[in-house]
Amino acid sequence: MVCIGVVDTTFARVDMGAAAVDELRSLMPHALVKRLTVPGIKNTVWGALRLIREGCDAVMVLGWVGPTQVDKYSYLATSIGLMQLQISTGVLVIDVTVHEEEGGGDERRLKEIALDRTRKHAWNLVQLLTEGLERYAGKGLRQGYPHAGEIL
Amino acid sequence: MVCIGVVDTTFARVDMGAAAVDELRSLMPHALVKRLTVPGIKNTVWGALRLIREGCDAVMVLGWVGPTQVDKYSYLATSIGLMQLQISTGVLVIDVTVHEEEGGGDERRLKEIALDRTRKHAWNLVQLLTEGLERYAGKGLRQGYPHAGEIL
Amino acid sequence: MVCIGVVDTTFARVDMGAAAVDELRSLMPHALVKRLTVPGIKNTVWGALRLIREGCDAVMVLGWVGPTQVDKYSYLATSIGLMQLQISTGVLVIDVTVHEEEGGGDERRLKEIALDRTRKHAWNLVQLLTEGLERYAGKGLRQGYPHAGEIL
Amino acid sequence: MVCIGVVDTTFARVDMGAAAVDELRSLMPHALVKRLTVPGIKNTVWGALRLIREGCDAVMVLGWVGPTQVDKYSYLATSIGLMQLQISTGVLVIDVTVHEEEGGGDERRLKEIALDRTRKHAWNLVQLLTEGLERYAGKGLRQGYPHAGEIL
Amino acid sequence: MVCIGVVDTTFARVDMGAAAVDELRSLMPHALVKRLTVPGIKNTVWGALRLIREGCDAVMVLGWVGPTQVDKYSYLATSIGLMQLQISTGVLVIDVTVHEEEGGGDERRLKEIALDRTRKHAWNLVQLLTEGLERYAGKGLRQGYPHAGEIL
Repeated sequence: MVCIGVVDTTFARVDMGAAAVDELRSLMPHALVKRLTVPGIKNTVWGALRLIREGCDAVMVLGWVGPTQVDKYSYLATSIGLMQLQISTGVLVIDVTVHEEEGGGDERRLKEIALDRTRKHAWNLVQLLTEGLERYAGKGLRQGYPHAGEIL
Repeated sequence: MVCIGVVDTTFARVDMGAAAVDELRSLMPHALVKRLTVPGIKNTVWGALRLIREGCDAVMVLGWVGPTQVDKYSYLATSIGLMQLQISTGVLVIDVTVHEEEGGGDERRLKEIALDRTRKHAWNLVQLLTEGLERYAGKGLRQGYPHAGEIL
Repeated sequence: MVCIGVVDTTFARVDMGAAAVDELRSLMPHALVKRLTVPGIKNTVWGALRLIREGCDAVMVLGWVGPTQVDKYSYLATSIGLMQLQISTGVLVIDVTVHEEEGGGDERRLKEIALDRTRKHAWNLVQLLTEGLERYAGKGLRQGYPHAGEIL
Repeated sequence: MVCIGVVDTTFARVDMGAAAVDELRSLMPHALVKRLTVPGIKNTVWGALRLIREGCDAVMVLGWVGPTQVDKYSYLATSIGLMQLQISTGVLVIDVTVHEEEGGGDERRLKEIALDRTRKHAWNLVQLLTEGLERYAGKGLRQGYPHAGEIL
Repeated sequence: MVCIGVVDTTFARVDMGAAAVDELRSLMPHALVKRLTVPGIKNTVWGALRLIREGCDAVMVLGWVGPTQVDKYSYLATSIGLMQLQISTGVLVIDVTVHEEEGGGDERRLKEIALDRTRKHAWNLVQLLTEGLERYAGKGLRQGYPHAGEIL
């Protein structure tokens, strides 16, 4: 049975983890979905590693990043860590990251972005494990925003 | 017996290490808590590694970062190092970092932030080793500041 | 038979992957060209790793990067990841990256840059696998722009 | 016999290496102190690695960094490299870095900073190898500047 | 026989590779000098790795970096990659990097900087493999510019 891991945080202000679990179960009813919640984005590398060691074939990492420069350095360090993790394990890790300033001060908008991005990346992950994404190459797909589309 | 490591610095202006040890002992009376003090944040990777080699199952790293751009690069390098350390050892490392500008010039406030963040992350670490944090997912928890809360 | 991998994204707004496959097949008719499409630039490290594990001798990574500072950190993290991948596997990975602001707001121009850069780097990859690039050393070659030329 | 390595540079404008060797010999008369000089900060990772392979139990790295943004990126890359080196070898590497702008244009002041920082970090290294630094935790110790002190 | 590798690029606007090969042959007539040209700075990590696998005992990497922020991130990623390469192989890699803005708009000046820096770092590499650089420690040596000198 395919196992898909979901790592989310208590720092996030939207329950992206629940949305990811729902979407993954809906798209892959026979997969085992395992969820692990950590405090913040910098802890997601350890969280993903633990789920990989428990047998997950792919992991979604759901991060929430504050608006300051220090927050962005934490994002950068985490992104580098998630790349290293994939290189050392070979397991796909798709990160879904929401940056607090994306809402432009509108919390409802921010929540919509977070949920849309989570669901679309759940679909991306499932596509990568099944039919692939080749037919969507260069189509300007976006998560959290409307698709930008292909330049014709 | 579970062993929890605490790495702190002589650079810090608050004894975060003592606060972490107290909190961990209070939350996990049967755990062995080991403390190692290093000069500054860039030395915490080595400190955490040494405690891991001595058998610690999880490590808290307590960092204090100055306000300049060079200080922030040191923070970034350390954050990247702590991720690599977790990938290569599999051991959880929770870093608690205080940035000197967070106090807004008020030393008392800075000390409060440092102690609150330390205690809350000690709790996070213990939760991760015991019952998990899943029930707090997406709740907008903060350390050093009031919780931001979930967007409803 | 030589195997060349092509990793592209659904985030890109131009089908750089198809252009790369065409150019590689034209330049190396006997090579096996394998293509894998991933969501965005941060997933290309995993994509390239998978093609390397499937036996590719070299990989082209076709990335498309947004204009914000966060996008640039994603570019930086990916670039670091692709270096690590090459160090740990020994396989050549040439990345072709388009930054959305390069078009100066002109989508047609942006598409031209993307296709020119893709084709020229396909040629670079083939040269590296065959005759080498030594005769072009220091010649100020550019991809996506006119050659800058050697300073005489 | 304990072996302590010292890596310094020809780029530095102060003979920090000699100061480090003197201080280490004074503090640990029975230690073997080995010195290796490299061109600049980016070469110190290789220098420290060589001394570790020759048997050093700890290494001081003495770096001098120019004032430009590119210089700071070199500092960042070196800092990341020194962390990785410690993770892969387990050997303590204390870096002592002087940034040219610290002198505020006063060369004499810059030299004082460099020598004070070098001597204090030599003491830090010896403490870490002997009695530890726990009694100085959270005391706001500084190198190159007066101690900031603990917030009471 | 000692083997020294030289990695240069087609992106560079000055034939730094030829200058490095000449200087190395002049300084170490009995060494085998191997040259490999790659497209740009981000490919130098792979180039250096290949020369190391072919038996080179030390490698010079000759990079040319554009003036934009994205170019500087490419420089940073490459610098981090070259550190990792040295840690994983133990082989000395000296990078000689020219930043296009260093010429201040004067191409002739830029060429002089590139050639002076290349030759001086070739000498540095040879010194490191033979007599060492200890006698020049803290002397404020510069490459591409006049020596800054020691602060007395």
